[in-house]
Amino acid sequence: MPPIVCIVGRPKVGRTTLIEKLIAELKRRNYRVAAIKHDVHGFEIDHPGKDTWRFAQAGSDAAVISSPQKLALIKKTDHDAHLEEISYLLSDEFDIILAEGYRQGNAPKIEVHRKEVPGELLFSDRELLALATDQRLDLAVPQYALDDAAGLVDLIEKRVMSEVEEDEALLLVNGARVPLNPFVKGFITRVVVAMVSALKGVSKADRVTVSVKRKEDAD
Amino acid sequence: MPPIVCIVGRPKVGRTTLIEKLIAELKRRNYRVAAIKHDVHGFEIDHPGKDTWRFAQAGSDAAVISSPQKLALIKKTDHDAHLEEISYLLSDEFDIILAEGYRQGNAPKIEVHRKEVPGELLFSDRELLALATDQRLDLAVPQYALDDAAGLVDLIEKRVMSEVEEDEALLLVNGARVPLNPFVKGFITRVVVAMVSALKGVSKADRVTVSVKRKEDAD
Repeated sequence: MPPIVCIVGRPKVGRTTLIEKLIAELKRRNYRVAAIKHDVHGFEIDHPGKDTWRFAQAGSDAAVISSPQKLALIKKTDHDAHLEEISYLLSDEFDIILAEGYRQGNAPKIEVHRKEVPGELLFSDRELLALATDQRLDLAVPQYALDDAAGLVDLIEKRVMSEVEEDEALLLVNGARVPLNPFVKGFITRVVVAMVSALKGVSKADRVTVSVKRKEDAD
Repeated sequence: MPPIVCIVGRPKVGRTTLIEKLIAELKRRNYRVAAIKHDVHGFEIDHPGKDTWRFAQAGSDAAVISSPQKLALIKKTDHDAHLEEISYLLSDEFDIILAEGYRQGNAPKIEVHRKEVPGELLFSDRELLALATDQRLDLAVPQYALDDAAGLVDLIEKRVMSEVEEDEALLLVNGARVPLNPFVKGFITRVVVAMVSALKGVSKADRVTVSVKRKEDAD
């Protein structure tokens, strides 16, 4: 799964604006970029009367519209999806994911700060990858101007995208994510890679996804 | 992956309307339903000024918005996605997928026909699961009235959804699908289910997805 950077900060501080600048800079460097917005209130994205809207109105749990240029999926969910679930949906098609508004979780974080937005920082300097700010603060964290997308992307490249990667494993059983400790993660990765490498037509298996379903009456 | 039924027919014949009726009937029977619309011309789904729209304007290849009730993904693509790719994206969360406008492919098809829409049927009777029509035709295919969603869903349940299921396995290596013969499919399914069943916290594993990535310098 692609590396994730979370852009955090108080409301109205300019997180979306910073993400726009980072996207533009990452695209200038030819990366494939995905951006995720966390919305706690609920959102409307579909247009009344369109076919996907009609499908949803009729009760469908998910509606997809697919064209040669674009694909859109809108689905109902019964829980607030974790970043990890979403990045699984995005799969390997992207080099980097920028997420807005996910304070929890272990992804590296850039906090946005502006002096006219009152309040302390949300994170301590040790918890942050960087601070994007219009006011230099006395903190032991790399600080960048709010429009210094080039500087921030240099840092993201160096500290997040080029990091020596560890084995990664995501396991879903009957649709739910099963947490894995490092030992089990390593074990599963080795078993799956070894099993697949034995197949005809497979030379080098670095990224493997296996999705299986047993027939209903299997013991 | 869930079974797929394609609703085909000439433009303006009422495919979307029939899908709405089928969705409502399937939901009455408590199935989890996804619907797919094929759009050859391109579509607009996002609202100008919204954050996902801003991300796309800035150049992001994909934008996701996630709330506790709903998740939406809009991504650019360089090709017209196959039904199989889309159903993989939808994964195991659904019991049935209804697709509009995919004439190619092997999924079972219901053709919609209305006498005021001129033109021959798109498919011969042998190629169709059923015909939804306002005019009985002299063909050897089950025929249903345009509003007979109950009859059509009875047929879908019997002929498509209750088909004796086999083990299913989808394998992606480095992003590409590896075809599996029945023996390998059964082998992989058994290994994965057995491995996962040994984990703490897993009781019964019918549907399992494992996605692993080895670290870059692994041998």
